[in-house]
Amino acid sequence: MAKKLVLHPDRLFSADEKQRGVARQLYETVRALPIISPHGHTDPSWFSGNAPFENATELLIKPDHYVFRMLYSQGIALEDLGIACVDGSAVEQDCRKIWHLLAGNYHLYRGTPSRLWLDTVFAEVFGFEQVLCAETADHYYDTINAALATDAFRPRALFERFNIELLSTTESPLSDLAHHKAIAASSWRGRVISAYRPDPVVDPEFEGFADAVRQFGALTGEDTSTFQGYLRAHRLRRAYFKETGVTSTDHGHPTARTAELPAAEIDALFTLALNGQASPEQAELFRAHMLTEMAAMSIEDGLVMQLHPGSSRNHNAQVFQRFGRDKGADIPLQTSYVEQLKPLLDKYGNTPGFTLILFTLDETSYSRELAPLAGHYPCLRLGPPWWFHDSPEGMRRFRQQTTETAGFYNTVGFNDDTRAFLSIPARHDVARRMDCNWLAELVCDHRLDMDEAGELAVELSYSLAKQAYKL
Amino acid sequence: MAKKLVLHPDRLFSADEKQRGVARQLYETVRALPIISPHGHTDPSWFSGNAPFENATELLIKPDHYVFRMLYSQGIALEDLGIACVDGSAVEQDCRKIWHLLAGNYHLYRGTPSRLWLDTVFAEVFGFEQVLCAETADHYYDTINAALATDAFRPRALFERFNIELLSTTESPLSDLAHHKAIAASSWRGRVISAYRPDPVVDPEFEGFADAVRQFGALTGEDTSTFQGYLRAHRLRRAYFKETGVTSTDHGHPTARTAELPAAEIDALFTLALNGQASPEQAELFRAHMLTEMAAMSIEDGLVMQLHPGSSRNHNAQVFQRFGRDKGADIPLQTSYVEQLKPLLDKYGNTPGFTLILFTLDETSYSRELAPLAGHYPCLRLGPPWWFHDSPEGMRRFRQQTTETAGFYNTVGFNDDTRAFLSIPARHDVARRMDCNWLAELVCDHRLDMDEAGELAVELSYSLAKQAYKL
Amino acid sequence: MAKKLVLHPDRLFSADEKQRGVARQLYETVRALPIISPHGHTDPSWFSGNAPFENATELLIKPDHYVFRMLYSQGIALEDLGIACVDGSAVEQDCRKIWHLLAGNYHLYRGTPSRLWLDTVFAEVFGFEQVLCAETADHYYDTINAALATDAFRPRALFERFNIELLSTTESPLSDLAHHKAIAASSWRGRVISAYRPDPVVDPEFEGFADAVRQFGALTGEDTSTFQGYLRAHRLRRAYFKETGVTSTDHGHPTARTAELPAAEIDALFTLALNGQASPEQAELFRAHMLTEMAAMSIEDGLVMQLHPGSSRNHNAQVFQRFGRDKGADIPLQTSYVEQLKPLLDKYGNTPGFTLILFTLDETSYSRELAPLAGHYPCLRLGPPWWFHDSPEGMRRFRQQTTETAGFYNTVGFNDDTRAFLSIPARHDVARRMDCNWLAELVCDHRLDMDEAGELAVELSYSLAKQAYKL
Repeated sequence: MAKKLVLHPDRLFSADEKQRGVARQLYETVRALPIISPHGHTDPSWFSGNAPFENATELLIKPDHYVFRMLYSQGIALEDLGIACVDGSAVEQDCRKIWHLLAGNYHLYRGTPSRLWLDTVFAEVFGFEQVLCAETADHYYDTINAALATDAFRPRALFERFNIELLSTTESPLSDLAHHKAIAASSWRGRVISAYRPDPVVDPEFEGFADAVRQFGALTGEDTSTFQGYLRAHRLRRAYFKETGVTSTDHGHPTARTAELPAAEIDALFTLALNGQASPEQAELFRAHMLTEMAAMSIEDGLVMQLHPGSSRNHNAQVFQRFGRDKGADIPLQTSYVEQLKPLLDKYGNTPGFTLILFTLDETSYSRELAPLAGHYPCLRLGPPWWFHDSPEGMRRFRQQTTETAGFYNTVGFNDDTRAFLSIPARHDVARRMDCNWLAELVCDHRLDMDEAGELAVELSYSLAKQAYKL
Repeated sequence: MAKKLVLHPDRLFSADEKQRGVARQLYETVRALPIISPHGHTDPSWFSGNAPFENATELLIKPDHYVFRMLYSQGIALEDLGIACVDGSAVEQDCRKIWHLLAGNYHLYRGTPSRLWLDTVFAEVFGFEQVLCAETADHYYDTINAALATDAFRPRALFERFNIELLSTTESPLSDLAHHKAIAASSWRGRVISAYRPDPVVDPEFEGFADAVRQFGALTGEDTSTFQGYLRAHRLRRAYFKETGVTSTDHGHPTARTAELPAAEIDALFTLALNGQASPEQAELFRAHMLTEMAAMSIEDGLVMQLHPGSSRNHNAQVFQRFGRDKGADIPLQTSYVEQLKPLLDKYGNTPGFTLILFTLDETSYSRELAPLAGHYPCLRLGPPWWFHDSPEGMRRFRQQTTETAGFYNTVGFNDDTRAFLSIPARHDVARRMDCNWLAELVCDHRLDMDEAGELAVELSYSLAKQAYKL
Repeated sequence: MAKKLVLHPDRLFSADEKQRGVARQLYETVRALPIISPHGHTDPSWFSGNAPFENATELLIKPDHYVFRMLYSQGIALEDLGIACVDGSAVEQDCRKIWHLLAGNYHLYRGTPSRLWLDTVFAEVFGFEQVLCAETADHYYDTINAALATDAFRPRALFERFNIELLSTTESPLSDLAHHKAIAASSWRGRVISAYRPDPVVDPEFEGFADAVRQFGALTGEDTSTFQGYLRAHRLRRAYFKETGVTSTDHGHPTARTAELPAAEIDALFTLALNGQASPEQAELFRAHMLTEMAAMSIEDGLVMQLHPGSSRNHNAQVFQRFGRDKGADIPLQTSYVEQLKPLLDKYGNTPGFTLILFTLDETSYSRELAPLAGHYPCLRLGPPWWFHDSPEGMRRFRQQTTETAGFYNTVGFNDDTRAFLSIPARHDVARRMDCNWLAELVCDHRLDMDEAGELAVELSYSLAKQAYKL
């Protein structure tokens, strides 16, 4: 018989009654605060077009590499999960059958944040009262699909129901931001902005880099075959983004390396890169220099800069060849910040008004590098635990390892960083619960007063994100 | 006056009454499950010959570098502990006197797993009711020795009393596995198998490598002066091991580096290695290539592959020179997996039926590398916390840092990995307690239901090891 | 209205009532033990001259980079904090105004050890009953200044009130130790010793290295233009320090690298270094060799050796240029010990009577390298969590990650390592509380008996420091 699905009201709070009581009290004051989602990867066309989502499998499995990577790790073929092949080979088309694969293997997610998020979506968004399993798979599939067909489950209605005050997506400089403009021009009052993510025109190793830079020139009317023209194109495109309400840029580099190269050297590197002749080290150096240029532009135009380094993208060669990018095979690398950020910090580390938000997939950097850096440099702030570390234990380690050196005020609240729209409230709820539980621990062992904890709970859940991202 | 030796029934469970209650309840269901010991270093001759163990010192101190390294670190000479010198210099022969050194310094082990294991052996195997100390040293020594002389303390009797369902030892390809065959041919029903550990014929830096490769050829009738003949010798020897019931191989390399070299290059490297002319980098490259070859053979013959990388062996030059290998001077190194395993994974990472179990002495790899890799690649599984991390805090960190990304089902239960036979039940008991305590924490903060935790307790204590090692 | 300042008697103890009770019971036995401060950076002239401290800002803000770095990280200019510029540019002179900056931003320290220490100083040294804030800033400033003008707050009186049994400062070999001699010659019975910190004459990259080496020769009557004369100068100066009661040396290197170079090579390196021609790699090699020489001298003269590696000093180029050293911009680096210490350990790792105390700013080395090394080599001991890790969470991680492999007896108690004299009792109190809380956890989950925990509490708070530093 299927088990009851219960979201315990005290979930994620300490077993200790005293700490749990304090955590619950703090959480009650932030539970219903609006959601600020200053960094993520939802699709803006959902909110401009407001078309209904297709079905449970298309919405909750296929686009979510957090979900299908676990099934793959246990031997379920990506073809059987309906993941499209690059060459158009046949893959499973029966979405109900794919849904059964998730349902029948739902035990694999025990102890993972995916399980927490999915259960929260199932219970709170769709109202299920039994746990997903082989027996309830059809009931789930039919109920979700039926709900998705109703107006109440269209993207804008869910956005409102989720109490989202602001949602940021992430776009290439080549995007015309048509969906964002359409949203702004519409009568709908939801606030959906973008972030300037120039990797396709900044990373010489990005597929189609030279073409993208040419298109970048065409879009901006600049001669992007010269480095100076290319920089002007960035300035123009950043201004274009900013006019639509954008307040931040985002940079997804393999490392945190920065550089400040002489004019002749960067000119030459740029030409090599455009000609597809840059070696891996030269590509790295070009990216490194561009981070420093981006900082300079942030100081000019006020866009907050985000750096997400340290992922070995598409690690699985066979999966990449057959299925393409973003198939759950991005694996963290050791990441160092102290030496690598120095060129940028030497130049702009003390410039008033500049903000650089640092993320990491290498938790060893929390106490050794990131907290000491953010606890000193005026420009630096620490982004929340990211990706694999966006989880209860990951959040606990982040606070345990950064608070004492960087304090709370050099952090920036929570980012959901997700393309799984329905999970956004669940993810913010996990962050709010974990932060309240951490504050409760500090209260219980008398490192913090209750009224201070109360202020901090609101700041971590809401205010710091608004301030840091200038929202 | 000597203190009472009490093993508290709730040891290692959280102080929190609620969590402790859940942990106790889970533990009661797994406490008495048979022991699966799929990887370890006991001596198979114990079980074929079934001769009595000699005395307390020979059994519990001299062969156990976990025990004597602590005494050495506090200034007690290895000679005084009776550790044999390579050159035959005189060392302490009086085993009772050596026993007194342990007893008189037993406080040094406070807070260590050695203390937990020894106390459990003392209380549960020998029935002591007072703590080991200078005052009780003779009583201990005499009682243990008297017990060891009885039939009930012979190896086979202890094996049965310990409720061991299967015990794996580890042997070189040059071993004839005579003891394992004798055990199998005997009327005794204990199951003792080996694992194929080819380091002596795979590592050009292993003492006597070239001789071992020659002997490898003689044993198999292959011409091991050519790389192809050498590979055939591996195939034959693996088949020989497999016929005796072996289900796994084990590889103890300094790093996790793998490689896929062109035929001409590996042929040349092999020749250099046989001639003792391989540089350290060439030796490393040879080992790296051989891991990929071993993976290929595992795919052929189905043996589960284990990789134990990252130990700087025999770090203490003076101790190595005077006393030889395995004297407690192996120290962990930083170990990276993401780049190093890529050549092997590029080739075999997605091959159905292949299993590669990864271990680490570098805990920073848990959340950054190992859990993300095992949470994606179908062939990868995570071995339990190893060696220095086979401890309550080590186990806690392992679960905290791997579960959210890899889940439970990409782990393989517990390995005791020990040559200290008497400690096997104690070690498995620590693992079962710590896993139950971790599951109890997840239950208490509502990340897991009680019935799921109950299933997992059995899987972590028993089933996953059997499945992963194909037992 | 200003909030009450309350130091809860159970602060830093677990919320769990059972564990808290045990921690409290242990703490009661060590709370009032005398303070052994075997390593730190207070100014010996305070205790020889015994002049009153100037005012709250000069005492508690300006010299304490732990305090002003947090304000700087949030955008408050160092000039506004009265930090002197190298070029004598005007900075804020109004100490009351600077004090208001601290008071008005005191919320920034929530969750940091600075907050714990300052509150303890405010409550216990000055008797404040309200929290520091904008409203209480003047009251604080006036009260502290008034107190400082009284005899009861002069350095010697505070030293006695703080129950300090021994305080070690740290001096260059060029120091004449006049203040230490004056203290010893005075009728005051406080024990203030120095430590031999030869970085200015050992590190070719130290500002003024060649001049310092010349002065070193002049002081000792040795020809320090030759390496042998330079070594003799060290021997003489160490003997000079030792005569004043010094028992230890201290080495603040960028890495833990050690080396044993042939005579011709080290002679040549020394000449290059004196001529200012050493490359960074050569400077590193010189420092590396000198650590091995210092070990040799420690074996001769019995001085305990301390190594504090792994800080990237003066990381912020602009701040360094404008304000000089020690302005809160020292950032930890990845630090490795296993390979780097090997040359020194190969030579002296097993020499009886030699003690080398290792510190780290890279917590990843605790379980991977430092505990395994200290759990084997007779000469090695682990220093307490250092600098950014001298904090409740840092102390917890240190014990969790070192105890199981190194035990307690390969650690050396607490160092406050501070120049903030008034915070010394607060810092030792935090250490005693955190150690008692850790012992209480071991007692509560039955890894330790209560009487063992009681012995350990005294050893960790008092005895181990005296023994390790030969005091």
